[in-house]
Amino acid sequence: MSTSRYIIGVDLGGTKISVGAMQASGGRVIAHHTEPTLAREGADEVTARIARCIEVVIAGACAETGATRADFAGVGLGAPGPLDREKGLVIVAPNLGWTNYPLSDNISAAVHLPATLDNDANCATVGEWWMGAAQGARHVVGMTIGTGIGGGLILNGELYHGASDVAGEIGHTTIDSTGRRCACGNYGCLEAYASGPAIAERAREALLGGEPSSLLSMTGGDASLITAQTVYEAAKAGDRIAAEVVRETARFIGAGVANLLNLFNPEVVVLAGGVAQAGEDLFGPMRAEVRRRAFKPAVDACRIVPGALGSTAGVVGAVKTFLMQHPA
Amino acid sequence: MSTSRYIIGVDLGGTKISVGAMQASGGRVIAHHTEPTLAREGADEVTARIARCIEVVIAGACAETGATRADFAGVGLGAPGPLDREKGLVIVAPNLGWTNYPLSDNISAAVHLPATLDNDANCATVGEWWMGAAQGARHVVGMTIGTGIGGGLILNGELYHGASDVAGEIGHTTIDSTGRRCACGNYGCLEAYASGPAIAERAREALLGGEPSSLLSMTGGDASLITAQTVYEAAKAGDRIAAEVVRETARFIGAGVANLLNLFNPEVVVLAGGVAQAGEDLFGPMRAEVRRRAFKPAVDACRIVPGALGSTAGVVGAVKTFLMQHPA
Repeated sequence: MSTSRYIIGVDLGGTKISVGAMQASGGRVIAHHTEPTLAREGADEVTARIARCIEVVIAGACAETGATRADFAGVGLGAPGPLDREKGLVIVAPNLGWTNYPLSDNISAAVHLPATLDNDANCATVGEWWMGAAQGARHVVGMTIGTGIGGGLILNGELYHGASDVAGEIGHTTIDSTGRRCACGNYGCLEAYASGPAIAERAREALLGGEPSSLLSMTGGDASLITAQTVYEAAKAGDRIAAEVVRETARFIGAGVANLLNLFNPEVVVLAGGVAQAGEDLFGPMRAEVRRRAFKPAVDACRIVPGALGSTAGVVGAVKTFLMQHPA
Repeated sequence: MSTSRYIIGVDLGGTKISVGAMQASGGRVIAHHTEPTLAREGADEVTARIARCIEVVIAGACAETGATRADFAGVGLGAPGPLDREKGLVIVAPNLGWTNYPLSDNISAAVHLPATLDNDANCATVGEWWMGAAQGARHVVGMTIGTGIGGGLILNGELYHGASDVAGEIGHTTIDSTGRRCACGNYGCLEAYASGPAIAERAREALLGGEPSSLLSMTGGDASLITAQTVYEAAKAGDRIAAEVVRETARFIGAGVANLLNLFNPEVVVLAGGVAQAGEDLFGPMRAEVRRRAFKPAVDACRIVPGALGSTAGVVGAVKTFLMQHPA
């Protein structure tokens, strides 16, 4: 029999649902479980799938720890924004096709537990702050680079949401005001240069010069199959074009991170998502670009590091955001 | 005889020293007094001049209100950064020629009152938040556009300083990563496009086309005498070149403010300094640019307004930053 309090964390993405349990006191993710989102089946079906994942995780965690269902205090949900946190609504999520969807209430009704909702990038940042690469810091900027570029802000030791829960949209800050059109409607957003798809797109553009590159052999000659991951791998293996795309990516991210240093003067910037796997090929030149651009006292005060929790950061942070709203 | 508690606020700039008294409960600036900085005379002479200004203000305020010297609780200092707030040091101030100068201790010794130190742009923002255009808001971004572009951040109802007191350097965020070299060493900083000197410089560049412009008649044919103020006045009077420079300035500032909305999601952005006098010629197209670029929920949540306190914002905010460190 257990006297611990357990929380479920849910990280809802456009392609997969990731769920796990944790003790309120922290530690590791227990009974981690992942399923495809299958957003095309509709919001209610996705909600039912999340609820089933939660039940699988509760059962797994009980078997593993000796806990009982009564030990589970609630569910923290992380979802793409913009959100209405208070009402638990996903206001708009283009990747899911959702509008004003009451995710918290529907999950809560399905699993008979209280549920809270926060932005997925906020959750990933909180996860790294609570249990990962930014533990103990008072001022943290988290940046999740994947299909998009999301951000989360821990300022003065608190998760910062702003006036209407849309703070931290780092991917949609302009680094070139006359530059590439972004999907958000703005021009020259960081996301238009350094998201996963933007990195792949720049690699395809670089191939147009006709220089031979392993990027093509790796994708069976079909450039449309190139992903950011392909680019990182080819660069590591010495491909010249891929290496240049990675260096250019490092410069773009470096310009964005320098802006964050001059604005937030954080102790830690955590970069999570696929980009963390690019390793020193990207982090080395990116840090050099930040040093060239940002104020020295801001550079001296800040570590710029890859996330330590990998793909579980969102689940860990979702648990913690629930706890921040439901202290013991 | 008075039972009020009075505080002195000092706004130290590269060209002038501005000093005034206020009651701890707020209200208006009493016995406001201004003198030229004359930085070339050296830090100790500037400090002595500030101390004399403080004595003039104390005498004036006593005469006006019936207060006695014993009613004055301290001095809040606002100075150009970077600073070490805890030690009361001005670390580097290029406009003053100071390095690691112990301003707080020296003022405190000269006037026999406790003194606190904060960044001048932080003080202007705090002033507008306490008594001006941003009263009552929990999340405020202040931007002071003059010789440089400074910034201050009120987040979750607190002045935000970051890890080493350099947060809020809005002027040194890149809006064009391959753009104009900035005095700070970075490329494409907002300050390199939209500070007073940058506006004047862009006006001089626009005149090279040879089109007649009142910018030249206003300065007796000497383009080197053009200031941002000249440009605003000429635009108001219908000069085509000046009007285009103002519109372009509005677009640059709009791109910078859109970044701030997507990052901070504030309730108010206050623009202070000379730019506030440009009026709707600048604010109209600037707000339109922000709407084009920023997320709608962030735009909907935010007022973008000129400062209400004019040149006294820094003094008012210096008083309040003292009070924040010395609550009654």
